[in-house]
Amino acid sequence: MGISGGSILFACARRDAPAVIPGETLNASGCLVMPGLVNTHTHLPMSCFRGLADDLPLMEWLHGHMFPAEAKHVNREMIHRGALLAMAEMILSGTTTCCDSYFYESSVVQAAVEAGVRIVAGQGFIDFRPPDAEELRRKAAAAERFIAKWGPRAPMVTPSLFCHSAYTCDPETLRTVKRVADGAGVLFMMHLSETREEVEIIGSRYGARPVHHLRSLGVLGGKCAVVHGVWLDDDEMDILAESGTGLCHCPESNMKLASGIAPVPALLARGVAVGLGTDGSASNNDLDMLLELDTMAKLHKVATMNPTAMDAETALRIATIGGARVLGLQGLIGTIEPGKRADLIVIDLRRPHLTPLYHPCSQVVYACRGSDVRDSIIDGRIVMRDRELLTLDVQRVMDDVREIAERVKKDEGRA
Amino acid sequence: MGISGGSILFACARRDAPAVIPGETLNASGCLVMPGLVNTHTHLPMSCFRGLADDLPLMEWLHGHMFPAEAKHVNREMIHRGALLAMAEMILSGTTTCCDSYFYESSVVQAAVEAGVRIVAGQGFIDFRPPDAEELRRKAAAAERFIAKWGPRAPMVTPSLFCHSAYTCDPETLRTVKRVADGAGVLFMMHLSETREEVEIIGSRYGARPVHHLRSLGVLGGKCAVVHGVWLDDDEMDILAESGTGLCHCPESNMKLASGIAPVPALLARGVAVGLGTDGSASNNDLDMLLELDTMAKLHKVATMNPTAMDAETALRIATIGGARVLGLQGLIGTIEPGKRADLIVIDLRRPHLTPLYHPCSQVVYACRGSDVRDSIIDGRIVMRDRELLTLDVQRVMDDVREIAERVKKDEGRA
Repeated sequence: MGISGGSILFACARRDAPAVIPGETLNASGCLVMPGLVNTHTHLPMSCFRGLADDLPLMEWLHGHMFPAEAKHVNREMIHRGALLAMAEMILSGTTTCCDSYFYESSVVQAAVEAGVRIVAGQGFIDFRPPDAEELRRKAAAAERFIAKWGPRAPMVTPSLFCHSAYTCDPETLRTVKRVADGAGVLFMMHLSETREEVEIIGSRYGARPVHHLRSLGVLGGKCAVVHGVWLDDDEMDILAESGTGLCHCPESNMKLASGIAPVPALLARGVAVGLGTDGSASNNDLDMLLELDTMAKLHKVATMNPTAMDAETALRIATIGGARVLGLQGLIGTIEPGKRADLIVIDLRRPHLTPLYHPCSQVVYACRGSDVRDSIIDGRIVMRDRELLTLDVQRVMDDVREIAERVKKDEGRA
Repeated sequence: MGISGGSILFACARRDAPAVIPGETLNASGCLVMPGLVNTHTHLPMSCFRGLADDLPLMEWLHGHMFPAEAKHVNREMIHRGALLAMAEMILSGTTTCCDSYFYESSVVQAAVEAGVRIVAGQGFIDFRPPDAEELRRKAAAAERFIAKWGPRAPMVTPSLFCHSAYTCDPETLRTVKRVADGAGVLFMMHLSETREEVEIIGSRYGARPVHHLRSLGVLGGKCAVVHGVWLDDDEMDILAESGTGLCHCPESNMKLASGIAPVPALLARGVAVGLGTDGSASNNDLDMLLELDTMAKLHKVATMNPTAMDAETALRIATIGGARVLGLQGLIGTIEPGKRADLIVIDLRRPHLTPLYHPCSQVVYACRGSDVRDSIIDGRIVMRDRELLTLDVQRVMDDVREIAERVKKDEGRA
């Protein structure tokens, strides 16, 4: 395989390779080289709250722990430190592209740039009070500033706009943000139908199922992806398919918060683009896409009582080119093809739990985990070699987050 | 913590520790020391068939791939090599006790002894033709020989008897094997209600639900544990509880083969002893108990739509002392207590995906994986230090299995 200027030049048997001027080389014998994993949904700085509050009812988790911790501790420094820790964890486990949305998103982007990780960064919108015209103008201006700031960094940084949800954003906010996104040609995203309660709230407030509500507002289609989609009926799945709306699937988070199981095989059958996401570390509790893959493939088998419901190849596509499609990056990443950006991971197969090897796809999905990733290349740059991170000082990154966690613990002790 | 003669002498703060004659030491600062994991159900030599055939309907998987591969390749050498590979994988991922059943079980025990892994080894029974009196006498004698051979090795080797299932073993076989087990005071085990089809077969053959059938044969209770228990109704769960029958829970195998989800929270509420198992590597596809733990805790939350259905502490107990109870070894292993055998693992917490640390239990269940286990001590003996296996030549173990896999591949190619 040859890489030049950040792009894949060729991928073929040695005898068919063109003569090239030798540069830096990476010997991957005994290893598997595959496209880097695409994590389509996460809230990276929440790594600071990993394991802070588990096994609780959703409302107690949110209102008793997450919201208070965020209100007290979220600032630009915490965001930057938490995001750097997440970058380290992602590189170490094979993710080369992430799609994030959280507060102070510019500080997350800063961390991605330092780490050399490809990012789709969503400026977030949420209404805590009914929006008035002034508020909306401010929101639109903020969205435009965010896009203007990071757009020139493409394809390593891709700005996007992220409305929290239909139950926390008023119709006018959704319409305004979508209009700005369309105007700038960037992706519009939002959480959708994560819980049964959410569907009931939308029903009682707007007299419609969530997807119908969004369609009536004109926010579906174009560059648009929704996250979770656990509670979709057949009609809603048809609408997502027809409108070309993508889905970010977060199976482990949906399991852990007891939200439900998204009907992914039914969505795939309709041709909906599906990508995989870990969600934030407060609700998972890690960013390991290889483990998420494994769980996803098994979960849909048992959910449908059909061992063929999702095979290893389908799962692997979801975590790579599927995610790239959802993010609108399928022309750049997600497969190993000459001309695409070189986002590649090297998996060391010479390990007891990866022996013997019959089918590489099965091995990756059902037996590999993040710690088997030996090297990582993003945009042609080696960011990890022999499990050593080349872009980050991992000890310092961990120390910086521990310092924040000490403060969080003190507050939890007090509460 | 002090260890002497294979037992835990003390576990306390340094200032409270008795003066001891210093011997070998292991510095675990920055680490978490916990009881070794107890894998209550597996077919270790099936590591040779890891990933051979995935994503297939159960019958095609069994009759098209597993049974032919077993018929052709199972022999003492294959069993020994496959079991050694499994031993390496188990030690590397924190398992210190396993409960196995497969063909030529003595060769599996041999591998466990070489590796220094604690094993409950089940001599297997299955009827391929209706048993006559002679056949049954042969079976009983084989069971007695197996127990006599390995019993003296306790507590590192604990012989047990394993009937495949109620649909592959006739009532007389089940009764005979249970009688021998009771006579020798060893554990009797069997697969039970793994699939809906199995419940139907038993119903049509014996006119009863599987647990009622077993109760009528007198095989429940005493030292008895059943594996899977996916399709149990309330009444059957009550009978398991009343009879003191334990359950080996294999969530990932049940997911992957689309068998269903065992009602574990309901069994725990009734006081049934529940242990965790990975099942064989042909249906999982690994032996990583820390990953199995994580999946189990999340699966029961989403299955019951209740995020408090199984908390991290409950999950961890199932994988340690719960498993020990199921195997009848709770007096020896499963917790860190003076007087118990020293089966301990050391987890290195200084890693990005394990940072920060709020609650050790949550971290182990939701963020740790096998590769985070740094050292392993079984029966007071260090079998892994800094991820180096001290009892096995891991390269050779892998090479030996690869050789078998090459033969299996040739046959698959021919088929």
